[in-house]
Amino acid sequence: MQEYYLGLDLGGTKILTGLADDKGKIITRSRRDTEAELGEDKIIKNMIKTIKDVLNKANVNKNQIRALGIGSPGPLDAQKGIIIENSNLPWKNVPLVKKIESALGIKTLLKNDANAAALGEKWFGAGKDVDNLVYLTISTGVGGGAIINKKLFTGVNDNACELGHTIIDPNGPLCGCGNHGCLEAFAAGTSIAKRAREAAAAGKSKKILDLADNIISDIDAVICAQAAYQGDQVAKDIFQNAGYYLGLGLANVINIFNTEMIILGGGVMKASDLFLDKALATMKEFALAGSLELVTVKEAELGSDIGLMGAIAVAMEARLIKND
Amino acid sequence: MQEYYLGLDLGGTKILTGLADDKGKIITRSRRDTEAELGEDKIIKNMIKTIKDVLNKANVNKNQIRALGIGSPGPLDAQKGIIIENSNLPWKNVPLVKKIESALGIKTLLKNDANAAALGEKWFGAGKDVDNLVYLTISTGVGGGAIINKKLFTGVNDNACELGHTIIDPNGPLCGCGNHGCLEAFAAGTSIAKRAREAAAAGKSKKILDLADNIISDIDAVICAQAAYQGDQVAKDIFQNAGYYLGLGLANVINIFNTEMIILGGGVMKASDLFLDKALATMKEFALAGSLELVTVKEAELGSDIGLMGAIAVAMEARLIKND
Repeated sequence: MQEYYLGLDLGGTKILTGLADDKGKIITRSRRDTEAELGEDKIIKNMIKTIKDVLNKANVNKNQIRALGIGSPGPLDAQKGIIIENSNLPWKNVPLVKKIESALGIKTLLKNDANAAALGEKWFGAGKDVDNLVYLTISTGVGGGAIINKKLFTGVNDNACELGHTIIDPNGPLCGCGNHGCLEAFAAGTSIAKRAREAAAAGKSKKILDLADNIISDIDAVICAQAAYQGDQVAKDIFQNAGYYLGLGLANVINIFNTEMIILGGGVMKASDLFLDKALATMKEFALAGSLELVTVKEAELGSDIGLMGAIAVAMEARLIKND
Repeated sequence: MQEYYLGLDLGGTKILTGLADDKGKIITRSRRDTEAELGEDKIIKNMIKTIKDVLNKANVNKNQIRALGIGSPGPLDAQKGIIIENSNLPWKNVPLVKKIESALGIKTLLKNDANAAALGEKWFGAGKDVDNLVYLTISTGVGGGAIINKKLFTGVNDNACELGHTIIDPNGPLCGCGNHGCLEAFAAGTSIAKRAREAAAAGKSKKILDLADNIISDIDAVICAQAAYQGDQVAKDIFQNAGYYLGLGLANVINIFNTEMIILGGGVMKASDLFLDKALATMKEFALAGSLELVTVKEAELGSDIGLMGAIAVAMEARLIKND
């Protein structure tokens, strides 16, 4: 009997589900709005609908499914299958895996989205040829996932590799987590946006303000990038500063993980030409020679499918390692 | 036939070698001066003498030895058995494992001293009851070693876990590695000594100067600790500052490794009452709740035997994991 795997990328605004064969090739996919505002039961119903949808479209039976992988923003208790909290979804301590398993009878595995993405890039993306990598997503926040000897490094309760919340300068700006000077507080999209709003409010960049039609609260990282591309020095400096601290973070990753590859993903990487050179130069300055010489830094390859392919890799991990 | 293991702790001033039974219990030990100033061949001869010495004393034959573990300061290429460089020994790119193996015919394994110490504490010290730990030595420098699922996390070429050279404040003091703001530049014994010398030279602490008989170059971390114990506020502040940055380092370890236990060792820990409270309070402030709640911080238990027991654990690692 042909076996299949399901992956579900649970986002704040959309749910993306895919059915894959036993090589990880996507056969069908389904997408729905999360409808987070309608509450927990509705979100779970929407998840189940996408799953039934891909099964129907492919004419695959539930008992042909080996596992469903779900990638979700955290914090979560992956081992117990519980989403503890989620800034984009209105729920707290939801036993998601139990609910999905009892509704569908399909073995379900939950991982935080950055960990899932690391697995996705390892098996289907930029990391295919290495056994050790660290994936760093630079997006609304900064998240991480490490693959050590082909396997996801989870830590004791699946909270490992919170690279966005490592301190790289305790005198740095306030982070969403309440601390000062986390990597995320320097390099995340929200941090870049905050710097841009501060600069605009202080009258330092007319360009940024113009691009936001003078509405400071509308200024985001995309507008800051536009201003930088149009030559605005303040906007350029904001990205260079983010690049410098990202470079320190990369050096720390190298000095701690002594890994083969660092893969950079996330929405902010769309503007990588504004900060990546600075990040790599800083990384080279601060990383130890013995580890630096064997590491490659690559951009993620899975693009907008990274969440989905990551979730599929979560479902398939045991099989992928065995068959490698 | 009874099987035995050898451990050799290679230091800048002394060589300490022990013969252990297949449970890791030390049967005989031997100690010699390294005589580093007499060069590479003499050092290796001295190493071999200590090995022959323990074998003779215990009346054990070479073919009863399963393996010899060597713990040495780095940088080194553990897989190739080469010591690349060593600030305390006058050698460069020495194929130590090959030389010892061809002289003795005993399988030899080389690890950097902090990694070996992590293994020692896991199997024979404070970490006996956990499968995941991070060992941090606060000594002349700051080094680290991580145990993940009972095994030493080596990284790709045995350079993982260089926690002393992670950046925690790029505006911080110069580190021996040439960068600014490494954990080592804040918390190592040499860094504490440097702060104390600066304070004395600037006329800020008569007490420190008095304890060093007015010879600024004689001021070390021990003198700074004495001054602090005698109530000198400048000396106390130097240790509190080191504690603060150590706490940031511990928080980063927790956020990255999501480990069960952190074990603190090294000579500076003898003065832990001057800085550990500050370090733990800072750690709790900056570590993420999900990882913080399950981690225990302990002091190392192997004391002055940590180098030797670490080297024995290096020799025994495969057996220890199998028999656990």
